[in-house]
Amino acid sequence: MDYYIAPLARLIEQFEKLPGIGRKSARRLAFHILGFSMEEAESFADAIISAKKLVKYCSICQNISDTDVCSVCSDEKRDKSVICVMESPKDVISLEKTGEYNGLYHVLHGAISPMDDISPEDIKIPELLSRIGSSVKEVIMATNPNIEGEATAMYISKLIKPLGIKVTRIAHGVPVGGDLEYADEITLSRAIQGRLEM
Amino acid sequence: MDYYIAPLARLIEQFEKLPGIGRKSARRLAFHILGFSMEEAESFADAIISAKKLVKYCSICQNISDTDVCSVCSDEKRDKSVICVMESPKDVISLEKTGEYNGLYHVLHGAISPMDDISPEDIKIPELLSRIGSSVKEVIMATNPNIEGEATAMYISKLIKPLGIKVTRIAHGVPVGGDLEYADEITLSRAIQGRLEM
Repeated sequence: MDYYIAPLARLIEQFEKLPGIGRKSARRLAFHILGFSMEEAESFADAIISAKKLVKYCSICQNISDTDVCSVCSDEKRDKSVICVMESPKDVISLEKTGEYNGLYHVLHGAISPMDDISPEDIKIPELLSRIGSSVKEVIMATNPNIEGEATAMYISKLIKPLGIKVTRIAHGVPVGGDLEYADEITLSRAIQGRLEM
Repeated sequence: MDYYIAPLARLIEQFEKLPGIGRKSARRLAFHILGFSMEEAESFADAIISAKKLVKYCSICQNISDTDVCSVCSDEKRDKSVICVMESPKDVISLEKTGEYNGLYHVLHGAISPMDDISPEDIKIPELLSRIGSSVKEVIMATNPNIEGEATAMYISKLIKPLGIKVTRIAHGVPVGGDLEYADEITLSRAIQGRLEM
């Protein structure tokens, strides 16, 4: 027997498609939407459609943007000789929040992963190669510190180094505020290898 | 500085309004929506609008329904002499799932709560009184077993009993599969009071 009437069942189903939302959460969210005013519901629905319609990719760095060239790429004050290569727009936001970086970005939208059938052409590697001109002095590989991220960094590094450009990798080590006792062996050995003079 | 472009920030804000969705989850969900195809996004937005538009309240029992009279109230096989009064449509679904109940329902959409400024007129009590005719033999009070639910059950009972109708309250006691050791004292004393002959 169907306990939920059709329009409600459909909404529950839609919520269930979202990451981290199980059947019970989806039901709770759907019932919450029923409690919305028509105006609130329209505003929610419109936000979804608008996000899809208005968010595009910067034609230079491939980061999400609501303009053809994003605010970072069009900022005169940013150092155009450094490009930081990252896997996702979320990573860019994390680095921007530190306020430590003043160069440009390049968003790959993924990492090379033969297991998931993602080859170099499936992510924004061709776009990266085509934008590297004489003004670029350093490319920082800031892909994730996992197998796919390391492989992607290695792959790109091998393509860019022959052009005479410096390629660097973000440091691996123990997280600040972390406890050495709980650091895994690989992280710890990387921290030792990457030690700096005090 | 705004790290999120406007349409994305707006979508994150909308997700944050939902219960149990914090800032981090809202971001993750918003980015997930960006990964949707335009068709998927439209289907999601439409489900929200449709749910609001198509879900109405049954003119008899006030439960949510996509027809003027809900499937329970219009079912010839249901026992029309018993009405089970519940706080929310979710409660009705829970009881329907047991398959144990064959009477009608009445959904109050809340409980009396002076603390939250909810008086008897703010919930569907007038609608309940107006539908009680000579065919009704029993009203089961199945409001929540908390202060507001008990008060609401008591209030309604005092209005209906003088009409010569039997008013019952769902049994309180230890949950099946539970451990007596962990039952609170009030529940346990109610279980003793409500003991039945074996």
